[in-house]
Amino acid sequence: MGGALPLASAPDAGPRTFDSTLARARDLAFAELTRALAGEPGPVAQAMLYACEGGKGLRGFLVLESARLHGLSEVEAAPAAAAIEALHAYSLVHDDLPCMDDDDLRRGRPTVHRKWDEAVAVLAGDALQTLAFELVANAPLPPEPRLALLLTLAQASGVRGMVGGQMLDIAAETAPAPLTLPEITVLQARKTGALLSWSAAAGARMAGADASALLRYGDALGLAFQIADDILDVEGDAATIGKAVAKDAAAGKATFVSLLGLESARARARSLVEEACDALAPYGPDADTLREAARFVAARRK
Amino acid sequence: MGGALPLASAPDAGPRTFDSTLARARDLAFAELTRALAGEPGPVAQAMLYACEGGKGLRGFLVLESARLHGLSEVEAAPAAAAIEALHAYSLVHDDLPCMDDDDLRRGRPTVHRKWDEAVAVLAGDALQTLAFELVANAPLPPEPRLALLLTLAQASGVRGMVGGQMLDIAAETAPAPLTLPEITVLQARKTGALLSWSAAAGARMAGADASALLRYGDALGLAFQIADDILDVEGDAATIGKAVAKDAAAGKATFVSLLGLESARARARSLVEEACDALAPYGPDADTLREAARFVAARRK
Repeated sequence: MGGALPLASAPDAGPRTFDSTLARARDLAFAELTRALAGEPGPVAQAMLYACEGGKGLRGFLVLESARLHGLSEVEAAPAAAAIEALHAYSLVHDDLPCMDDDDLRRGRPTVHRKWDEAVAVLAGDALQTLAFELVANAPLPPEPRLALLLTLAQASGVRGMVGGQMLDIAAETAPAPLTLPEITVLQARKTGALLSWSAAAGARMAGADASALLRYGDALGLAFQIADDILDVEGDAATIGKAVAKDAAAGKATFVSLLGLESARARARSLVEEACDALAPYGPDADTLREAARFVAARRK
Repeated sequence: MGGALPLASAPDAGPRTFDSTLARARDLAFAELTRALAGEPGPVAQAMLYACEGGKGLRGFLVLESARLHGLSEVEAAPAAAAIEALHAYSLVHDDLPCMDDDDLRRGRPTVHRKWDEAVAVLAGDALQTLAFELVANAPLPPEPRLALLLTLAQASGVRGMVGGQMLDIAAETAPAPLTLPEITVLQARKTGALLSWSAAAGARMAGADASALLRYGDALGLAFQIADDILDVEGDAATIGKAVAKDAAAGKATFVSLLGLESARARARSLVEEACDALAPYGPDADTLREAARFVAARRK
């Protein structure tokens, strides 16, 4: 059976909990990144690996799990899982820079520009983005799906995707009025949603199959993720989350919580989880691990 | 005849000078970039186009001209030409940042972080890199050559290529002793050589042909280019070049001129031009425009 089992059912994954499923996916992606950077000396390569450590590994998990749903092996899917983790890490390293969000702490450790310096952080972020495209370009998949993954990854992360969302976020800080709910929804769809949806849809694209159900799942999951993030910024504690909290409120920034109120934000996150789960209907119970991921995302404590 | 003619022989290119050949290639690549960013508002997209303006367009020219040598049309080659100009522009925008080379002037105009701010410069550079991969992933070429271009572009620009070279350059500034000739040759092969060689080899890769002659040409051209740059840093004037000069000498950095002396550096550049021209032997006189490019690179005044 092997590759056709849910990640968590593998013999070495221990009792079937979602956390162990996620941990196993994270380890697979990180092993791929370590292999890709093996033998490369110097602070930039070190900082690249450091930046990929200690995250939840949610994006890589979505790639591996959607690939499994479409009958692909872990060997085929792991490079794309590593790629999306590298791309996500690049975005965090650059977002944390003094000229951007100016954060000292990430995942409970000093940010890259604090541990090394700003030049290393700029270069490590740059090279992590490059590595993401290199990993997908080199994945053991037929040419057409590899190209589909590459093109959609570029679209999701560029000026019309993630970078555009980050720009809207920065612009909002100096805007005369806080953002409205439709504006913040667009911002988040670009800033965090695009890469989560790409991850969820990756398996279908690898198989040359229709990605629309997984994209609907990814869009709902992405929005639930962001609402949960805003709830954590209000309710969470920095020691657990591993980064600064209450920054948005302190900055007077509009969030889903400030716009909807805490209770409505929670209700909205719950209904998005339902929406995400319903989108997976074509896959039947085989998609239960992805359903669990949607519940995990909305209920997470960090 | 159309697509099979050297770029400069096209009816609208005016008298056949290398400058007009280069200008036409530059216009083709820039038109492609403008199309790719059309309708995208906001400072990041503006800064991306700004960063691509006003350069020599040498890399895009090499892509177009090597593609012509292999029978490809401008329509097929223009996205890759635009991609390498976008990738080069990203590297300049990030290199100019205060935490890197801290330059205020580039191509005779304020650098992106001076005209906008550092956040826009980081994001515009990031999105230019993404755009480069998007353009190649979307090029009107068969899947295999597109993937070959993407993979080699990532390898040439990542931590084992351009970014690695930039890191060596930064490390050299605080090293106890100036770099030696072999060290500076490796540094420049990665920092500037890798992308020039990629550009020169692009046409062969698009055609699925042997790229070794064009790679040898590109390697020699790249080194000649860097030696010419070091000569300009000593002899050039900032108004003509459009950026600060004599920075390397002021910083006590080793350059080809400081290591070889001015006359030997000039002789080395001349012999590299010969080497580049000889590498093109398999193409016969059809490669004369590329030979002209090698002479242009070594003799340029900016």
